Amino acid sequence: MIAVDFFGKNARFHHVGMAVGSIRAIDADVEIVDNQTQGVRMAFVDCHGATLELLEPLGERSPIARSVKQGIKLLHLCFEVPDVDEAVAACRASGFHRISQPTPVPEYENRRIVWVFSKDYGLVELVEDKPYSS
Amino acid sequence: MIAVDFFGKNARFHHVGMAVGSIRAIDADVEIVDNQTQGVRMAFVDCHGATLELLEPLGERSPIARSVKQGIKLLHLCFEVPDVDEAVAACRASGFHRISQPTPVPEYENRRIVWVFSKDYGLVELVEDKPYSS
Repeated sequence: MIAVDFFGKNARFHHVGMAVGSIRAIDADVEIVDNQTQGVRMAFVDCHGATLELLEPLGERSPIARSVKQGIKLLHLCFEVPDVDEAVAACRASGFHRISQPTPVPEYENRRIVWVFSKDYGLVELVEDKPYSS
Repeated sequence: MIAVDFFGKNARFHHVGMAVGSIRAIDADVEIVDNQTQGVRMAFVDCHGATLELLEPLGERSPIARSVKQGIKLLHLCFEVPDVDEAVAACRASGFHRISQPTPVPEYENRRIVWVFSKDYGLVELVEDKPYSS
């Protein structure tokens, strides 16, 4: 199988983001974190080797509220990288462009995340592999 | 991280299905297979450890033509299982139901595939880990 390198040689697949109406309704035990920065409640589950990030709208202005209403389940792929700035620079050659500022997420180990988009591959989240210290 | 078991203990994450307008336009080298059974052209690429199944509509009645038009990229998750019938039976307890007959796919090593759906987790393809012999 051909390998494609969009985000740098140390990038690794991290999770698939999936919209759900209620995390608690579909899993009684999973740990749920409210991510005010992104307007979502989130939880991670391992599904036969794939990490699924369950995402529930947090508030009416949540960016995923419309996906839930429309029944769109799979929202994005996420890759873990050593440095989001370097990964953003690398993926430009493959047609990705940055659609957010790199942002540390206090609710996620203060790691920096950034969103990129390509018309071919869609929405991708890049997350740094360690906490951010400015 | 909590693990969920929908499809049996030997199920393994296999790929993410992604709709594209033209496989060849986004990758000059990848091997493309026309899958008449499913109405798609398909190619697999490894993207930083995630297998992506690129899917291009084959004919105007392709089931993915509308996704391409709407810009919906991520279509389904696929898990590899030893036996699709057993996996279908197992996942009923988690709210999945079968939406196709198990079908050997000549263009994919004659392995049997089946589609299941859950309102919580969306569309999932199950593929057997070996060729089918009736």
